Amino acid sequence: MVYDLIVIGQGPAGLSAGIYASRYKINALIIGEEPGGTATHAYKIENYPGFSSISGLDLMKKFREQITDSVEIKQEKVIELKKEDLFIVTTDKEIYKSKAVIVAAGTKRRELNIPGEHEFLGKGVSYCATCDAMFFKDKRVAVVGGNDAAAMSAMLVSEYASEVFIIYRKEKIRAEPKKVEMIENNKKIKIINNTNVLEIKGNNMVESLVLDKEYNGSSEIKVDGVFIEIGSVPSTVLTNKTGVNLDENGYIIVDEGMKTNIKGVYAAGDITTGSDKFWQIITAASEGAIAAKSAYDFLKNENA
Amino acid sequence: MVYDLIVIGQGPAGLSAGIYASRYKINALIIGEEPGGTATHAYKIENYPGFSSISGLDLMKKFREQITDSVEIKQEKVIELKKEDLFIVTTDKEIYKSKAVIVAAGTKRRELNIPGEHEFLGKGVSYCATCDAMFFKDKRVAVVGGNDAAAMSAMLVSEYASEVFIIYRKEKIRAEPKKVEMIENNKKIKIINNTNVLEIKGNNMVESLVLDKEYNGSSEIKVDGVFIEIGSVPSTVLTNKTGVNLDENGYIIVDEGMKTNIKGVYAAGDITTGSDKFWQIITAASEGAIAAKSAYDFLKNENA
Repeated sequence: MVYDLIVIGQGPAGLSAGIYASRYKINALIIGEEPGGTATHAYKIENYPGFSSISGLDLMKKFREQITDSVEIKQEKVIELKKEDLFIVTTDKEIYKSKAVIVAAGTKRRELNIPGEHEFLGKGVSYCATCDAMFFKDKRVAVVGGNDAAAMSAMLVSEYASEVFIIYRKEKIRAEPKKVEMIENNKKIKIINNTNVLEIKGNNMVESLVLDKEYNGSSEIKVDGVFIEIGSVPSTVLTNKTGVNLDENGYIIVDEGMKTNIKGVYAAGDITTGSDKFWQIITAASEGAIAAKSAYDFLKNENA
Repeated sequence: MVYDLIVIGQGPAGLSAGIYASRYKINALIIGEEPGGTATHAYKIENYPGFSSISGLDLMKKFREQITDSVEIKQEKVIELKKEDLFIVTTDKEIYKSKAVIVAAGTKRRELNIPGEHEFLGKGVSYCATCDAMFFKDKRVAVVGGNDAAAMSAMLVSEYASEVFIIYRKEKIRAEPKKVEMIENNKKIKIINNTNVLEIKGNNMVESLVLDKEYNGSSEIKVDGVFIEIGSVPSTVLTNKTGVNLDENGYIIVDEGMKTNIKGVYAAGDITTGSDKFWQIITAASEGAIAAKSAYDFLKNENA
């Protein structure tokens, strides 16, 4: 069976593309490893227009409910994308074919690359506060990073932990001012600026972090857990075999219609250079809609 | 008093800019003639990600509820925008000043420019099905146009009227396939293609339309009302005095950050060339968010 369209990724961009593909009655398949994508890691979203406050999980569930009729969703890991006469998408389970592709595979979390990071993964080290915050009730926890995600993770963790340290390598955390204010008013959270984490230490579980600078008279700080929130890199390894143009940081270069340089290949969401690289759920959803519209126009002409 | 930011327009783009301005704690004022803008004319929205089905009125109310703290909204008509040391925004009531401006004034409905159109406005002629459909209970009504808005208006009108004629000048209506299907399955609706309306006739109220082609053996068709849904033109008369660059159709030319060629002037929504001119609530909301982010970055540097 040949699909008209395969969407790679089921985060906000992929699902929004699916919503619009449903409206256009495109025979489409959405393939993604993680339902809802990394958006589901956000425990509270307050800036997606339409919802004063909603969890990422619930918002993505709502997106999914709007995908109907002609559009299927499969939870599989895409391993390879290549172009022959048709596009060939290989997953860990199956091989699929389509006439057009939307790449909405998002980004992968950046790692600190320090000793102990891999060793203690799941033993105190986590990249997802939404998933793991509740395991640190009455514990001391560090959040490494200074962006919006780090700020939100610290807020969430503080609902469980007894004490939260935000450790950031630069002068001042760069989260949204509203989030900075929330953090400054939160008595459980302390910010440690101008500091890097050199090592994660422990026995069976995380016990402390080694810092490159003293804090309260010691370069070691006792914590039971550490959330690493230092940003992401685009998951573009997939597009190597398609000849899609990337920018110097590996993001897929798209035009206003979310078209790449390869005919029939569109991209949407955090993986692209679109929306001035302002990575929000609202921008990803918009890009997904536009990509689906462009794919629809392409397919209509192909089949005419 | 000088605002940091004035947003002109309170449709999806303007309100989304307001939501993000709230998050950034920008001292901002949103000025718009119509709360919710033309989005409120949509009686049923099914493709805004997050809502399976919602009225434009309700969705815009939800947007408005997310605007807090530092952002005010005023329902006034903006008459002039000009740049001196600051931006000067003149409304029908007041003169306001700001350091930056987001133009999100949307589009105005296009008119047929035929005899009877102005004469019978409010007497059977309408540009807003959401506003007026209920006045045509058990009546015969025409909808002129073939786009998504025309299709949705016909669907809405059919919930009241006894018979609905879609009159379209081209071969085939160009609404979303899902909407076309809904219309084809609706027994009250008949589509008259390849036909123009030449005149709207009546005494006190609309009584018939003169067509440029016979339908059922006559070039006159009896109707009690006519909804004109033939698209829109950008409301850019405001930007004349600012030197903002427009494209050949009068849309404000923006870059990926929703910046215009004039420093401190941003634009978002249907009035711009953004999002590949795919005019949707989701794209307008995204552009509003991006414009607010760009304005925030600009103001931060200005005030630094």
